[in-house]
Amino acid sequence: MTMNTRIAPQPFNFTQVHRMGPAALRRLVTVGPGMCGPTKAFASCVGDWTWESVSDACGIDVFNARDDRGRPTYLSFYYYRITSGDSFHLKQLTFGDRLEVQTQVFDAGRRAVLTMHRLRRITGSEDDHVITPFEVSEAYTRHREDCIYVENLNMWVSRGGTHTNVGLVRSPPIGFDNTVLPTLPDEYSPRFLCSQARTQHVFPDPVTDSWSARGSHFVVEYPVNITLDVNGAGLLYFASFFSIAEHAQLEQWRALGRSDQAFLDRVIRDTRICYLGNADIDTTLRLRLHSVYNPQDPAEEKTNIVIDDLSTDRTIAVAASRHRSHEATPTAASPPP
Amino acid sequence: MTMNTRIAPQPFNFTQVHRMGPAALRRLVTVGPGMCGPTKAFASCVGDWTWESVSDACGIDVFNARDDRGRPTYLSFYYYRITSGDSFHLKQLTFGDRLEVQTQVFDAGRRAVLTMHRLRRITGSEDDHVITPFEVSEAYTRHREDCIYVENLNMWVSRGGTHTNVGLVRSPPIGFDNTVLPTLPDEYSPRFLCSQARTQHVFPDPVTDSWSARGSHFVVEYPVNITLDVNGAGLLYFASFFSIAEHAQLEQWRALGRSDQAFLDRVIRDTRICYLGNADIDTTLRLRLHSVYNPQDPAEEKTNIVIDDLSTDRTIAVAASRHRSHEATPTAASPPP
Repeated sequence: MTMNTRIAPQPFNFTQVHRMGPAALRRLVTVGPGMCGPTKAFASCVGDWTWESVSDACGIDVFNARDDRGRPTYLSFYYYRITSGDSFHLKQLTFGDRLEVQTQVFDAGRRAVLTMHRLRRITGSEDDHVITPFEVSEAYTRHREDCIYVENLNMWVSRGGTHTNVGLVRSPPIGFDNTVLPTLPDEYSPRFLCSQARTQHVFPDPVTDSWSARGSHFVVEYPVNITLDVNGAGLLYFASFFSIAEHAQLEQWRALGRSDQAFLDRVIRDTRICYLGNADIDTTLRLRLHSVYNPQDPAEEKTNIVIDDLSTDRTIAVAASRHRSHEATPTAASPPP
Repeated sequence: MTMNTRIAPQPFNFTQVHRMGPAALRRLVTVGPGMCGPTKAFASCVGDWTWESVSDACGIDVFNARDDRGRPTYLSFYYYRITSGDSFHLKQLTFGDRLEVQTQVFDAGRRAVLTMHRLRRITGSEDDHVITPFEVSEAYTRHREDCIYVENLNMWVSRGGTHTNVGLVRSPPIGFDNTVLPTLPDEYSPRFLCSQARTQHVFPDPVTDSWSARGSHFVVEYPVNITLDVNGAGLLYFASFFSIAEHAQLEQWRALGRSDQAFLDRVIRDTRICYLGNADIDTTLRLRLHSVYNPQDPAEEKTNIVIDDLSTDRTIAVAASRHRSHEATPTAASPPP
């Protein structure tokens, strides 16, 4: 078969991946329909990059990992945070955007891994620039307004029982050696946040402690949707928790008299989930929401969410989302109580 | 920064893409959580491959296409079919599966493109085999039992009005030249099927014409879920139609007294959708289902689905799904009327 002369020698515009260091990758990516629109789609795509990046940094196949008893062990998402800047945020992503995604993987102990992604929109001419990996402190203390950061803390787990998603056990795979990974400075570790979320069922956040309540507590029940929420290993899919949480937020949003379009148009600055457990797929979840707003800037809101598995009466996730909306002022459609 | 000696020189196990001819690509892919589990996840991932493959074959950037009036034009999915063999079907896909995906792109006229993907599970040692592209007739007349085939007929469309998804217009982009693509033999074109679906609201299928009705017609209303069903261009996402159709099928399934687990365990042999229009995101869809079963093998069923946009009283999609389930026999939990 002869080559058509209109065709470039390399396949068109696909994702390119380069290694920048032993635990650092750089992807050049064209955004397709599969990774933009719903927050779930974005979280899913970046989650796969996490597995690829850890595979690369640790020299093991995360997708086929097994523990020393031969059981499949999954690099499950324990903490997932997406933060956006003013000039580039989640809901702006659309078809054809060209992104530079820098990823760094860090030691988080014998049974865990921390991965940090930084996404930045680029133009075609930037693709070949010589670059150095970003300083990880940037993600925690000097956010760039033109970047989206995604932080993942993952834990190795396998099924404790054969036929249930309840009671997963920590179980690192054969061949995993966390000591090959660079160290994350202690002050950036999300472990304290997660430990607080586990015990207090809310992320500590001194900034919003003084914010005012927006309405009363709001409760939504959600039967697991088996056509959407179950991953290829039969577990509740971590990325579905973003859509499940947004479903409940939308119910609350509507109850405050706001429009669906304003919900889609809100700027999500910071959304995070701490996953405390999985659940069987025939369960119903209960989401308890509590929203607060910034008295100095009432368009700025935060919603804390606790997700319980009603079948086992356990809290299986704690979430928080901070956003801005122009329909959110208390003098407009949604007065505080 | 020095390289860790444990690390292979190339990044680990990522998708590799090679061109096999001017309109043929071969991907070696590791299945991640993002592409298995829900049918929607699979359809979404393969749909992105379609856009990449057409970009490559036609030498244009499908993700950033514009028509001669400067409007964004989308290579929208008009017909999407997934067929599976006995020894490799959709619901078997799981983390870590290694796939060879061969893709061929064909001329379908000035305003359309036909893409055929063949997915086959491989072992690591097969990755470097010298291969020749599969004969496209195989997908239509000599299905391999160890392959999944995905057929996409896409049409170029742009928004007729500024603020609505109703009344999209056919609009090929600047730089698109269908004549560079190989021709698909007429007998394989899905245009006749789609034309029948458009006028009759059902796919013609002589094989199942003699099958017996399983229950009466079943109707489900589905308000569009804006946290899940809207893509990055503000349109109803083609892949969501698979989950919307499955949601309705699951309602029908439960009404027949069957278990959710059996729904997840069914073998989907052939599922297809013809997309006749898009809809605004604040609408409710109505799905009308009619199921039949094979009297010679009652575990084999087919469900025809018509999807209407209630806001505009239009049929916007016609779907059909053929599957096997061991709970589907009329003598078991689900007697015919």
